[in-house]
Amino acid sequence: MPGSPLPPWNVSPGEPTLSQVGEMEILRRIRRFLEGRGHVPAAKTFLELGPGDDAALVRPSGRFPLALTCDIHVEGQHFRTDLLAPIDLGRRVMVSNISDLAAMGAIPRTALVSMALPSNEAARALFEMIEGLSEEIEDSGGVVAGGNLSMTTGPRVVDVTLVGEMEGEAFLRSGAGDGDDILLIGSTGEAAAGLWCLENLERKAAEAGAGRLYVRPRHWLRESRRLRDLGGVKALIDTSDGFASDLSHVCEASGVGAEVEVDTLPVSRELEDAARRAGRDPLEWVLGPSDDYALVAAVDPGSSKKILTALGPVVRRVGRFVSGSGVCFKGRDVRQLFGWDHFRESP
Amino acid sequence: MPGSPLPPWNVSPGEPTLSQVGEMEILRRIRRFLEGRGHVPAAKTFLELGPGDDAALVRPSGRFPLALTCDIHVEGQHFRTDLLAPIDLGRRVMVSNISDLAAMGAIPRTALVSMALPSNEAARALFEMIEGLSEEIEDSGGVVAGGNLSMTTGPRVVDVTLVGEMEGEAFLRSGAGDGDDILLIGSTGEAAAGLWCLENLERKAAEAGAGRLYVRPRHWLRESRRLRDLGGVKALIDTSDGFASDLSHVCEASGVGAEVEVDTLPVSRELEDAARRAGRDPLEWVLGPSDDYALVAAVDPGSSKKILTALGPVVRRVGRFVSGSGVCFKGRDVRQLFGWDHFRESP
Repeated sequence: MPGSPLPPWNVSPGEPTLSQVGEMEILRRIRRFLEGRGHVPAAKTFLELGPGDDAALVRPSGRFPLALTCDIHVEGQHFRTDLLAPIDLGRRVMVSNISDLAAMGAIPRTALVSMALPSNEAARALFEMIEGLSEEIEDSGGVVAGGNLSMTTGPRVVDVTLVGEMEGEAFLRSGAGDGDDILLIGSTGEAAAGLWCLENLERKAAEAGAGRLYVRPRHWLRESRRLRDLGGVKALIDTSDGFASDLSHVCEASGVGAEVEVDTLPVSRELEDAARRAGRDPLEWVLGPSDDYALVAAVDPGSSKKILTALGPVVRRVGRFVSGSGVCFKGRDVRQLFGWDHFRESP
Repeated sequence: MPGSPLPPWNVSPGEPTLSQVGEMEILRRIRRFLEGRGHVPAAKTFLELGPGDDAALVRPSGRFPLALTCDIHVEGQHFRTDLLAPIDLGRRVMVSNISDLAAMGAIPRTALVSMALPSNEAARALFEMIEGLSEEIEDSGGVVAGGNLSMTTGPRVVDVTLVGEMEGEAFLRSGAGDGDDILLIGSTGEAAAGLWCLENLERKAAEAGAGRLYVRPRHWLRESRRLRDLGGVKALIDTSDGFASDLSHVCEASGVGAEVEVDTLPVSRELEDAARRAGRDPLEWVLGPSDDYALVAAVDPGSSKKILTALGPVVRRVGRFVSGSGVCFKGRDVRQLFGWDHFRESP
């Protein structure tokens, strides 16, 4: 359970809180803040009307479908205020949504943001969260279109709905076939390793290592767009549940099995270092539950080489899809790392 | 603060809870539940891909913009489990979102639903909420496209994002002009009166009166569509904050003032009855904060008669917009009902 909040969440003496500023004034300031950052209706953003009316208006190009995703982050379940500053929480929530669109092959266009916060939250903390959310969506060319704010007596909640435009056919989970290569873009387990560091090491030491990767995760939107141009991708998913779990989702949706060559899985220096300090096998984090945003692709074997060459070292071939069902790991007996039922989906 | 939950929230002995069923299985059952109700990709629903992948896909007709709205409902702030059953909570949350689209002149198409619930919630209660959400969106021709579920140790949270399609120009808050009529579709204050009944009367007595109007609120989507056909509407808003407050939002956005003829405001029999029991002036509820979903329109005076005739007794002319600013009430001194600063927007 969460400990004391980080200084960026604390209310300094004299600093105005949400209830002191008042909801209407807060919403006005948020609108001004977003306008000041260029989140205004403009042809290129596809936004026709931003915050301030009963709904926002957007005008899609209409050539391809829109992709809709949402991700609710609850204090104590998805984040801790003693580990993540408001701006980093904002970034993390938006990255997780952008990653969902990347896994679909869509480009982020606009977001709606719902928050439930304590009435004695520093107004500044709210704006830092919005800054983090804005920064990330701006970096991928989108804008915040609206949202709503509630008080709560309980854990903080940040829920973002992100609307994107497809650039062609969707990358579904269900397209993997027997013989397809499994490509991994990015690496996994770092969020779990980073959390361990933040929970167990001095802040400075944690942030020098995997902690930083938890605090500032990245998505692979640009690489998803390259994959579309390069061709050959038959299924795509992001690893927000963890490598083994998300790979099994692709297997289930596609009606195939998967063979993973464990030694080919990338293990970052930061994760390796954290595992050594924790006295754990790095694979526990690399394969297990971890809130990273790497991409797992099923790729036509004829296209893998081209992709590996074009994307460089961020992508690896880590196995292949086979007829059958379930995920098996070759080169290491990983069952000893987990309970036998670790990857069962129901507790 | 909330008291004991209503029986429909209580977990009966032996009844499975969310954590017992497990997240993945719950999500699977929700998908089956929605599919069983016809929430499946189909041309008429504009949904191309429903729940189960990284994002949902929708294909707008493209003629007019899309309208996006979201509304977060937090236990203890927006609802109490001792007053509202799960199915009624679901309906209420969806009605509030549909009302936002009605106030914009958009037709509901698809919703994303985020929930944060206790791990020991009855799985049945979750499905009852989804039933309520589904019923309401189905009634207006839309479907649930996806969502996500989190556990929480705090108050329950239900956040719905609703996507609609415009059928023409948007009804904004900013279009009212000097001399326009103020038309009210539906009546206001019943949610506040209903809450008073539920809090102060026996359940049965409350539900025989205004309590029922709180438990089963309605939106005015059909009437909003009629308004578009009839023409003459220059601004529209729904009264989810309360009549006086929402009317002042239109005034502010449009740069005009408003004169309300207090005696023309509709007062429902149920509200009148509740006011008598509470020993209050009905106007406190009719004008004050109340979470109803009536519509307030600014209408070109030349078009009012046609609208009043076409929509019948659900619509009334209750005043007019004037040059200047602020809302004034004619025929009654209502200042005595409220503190002088009651309608100030900051606390």
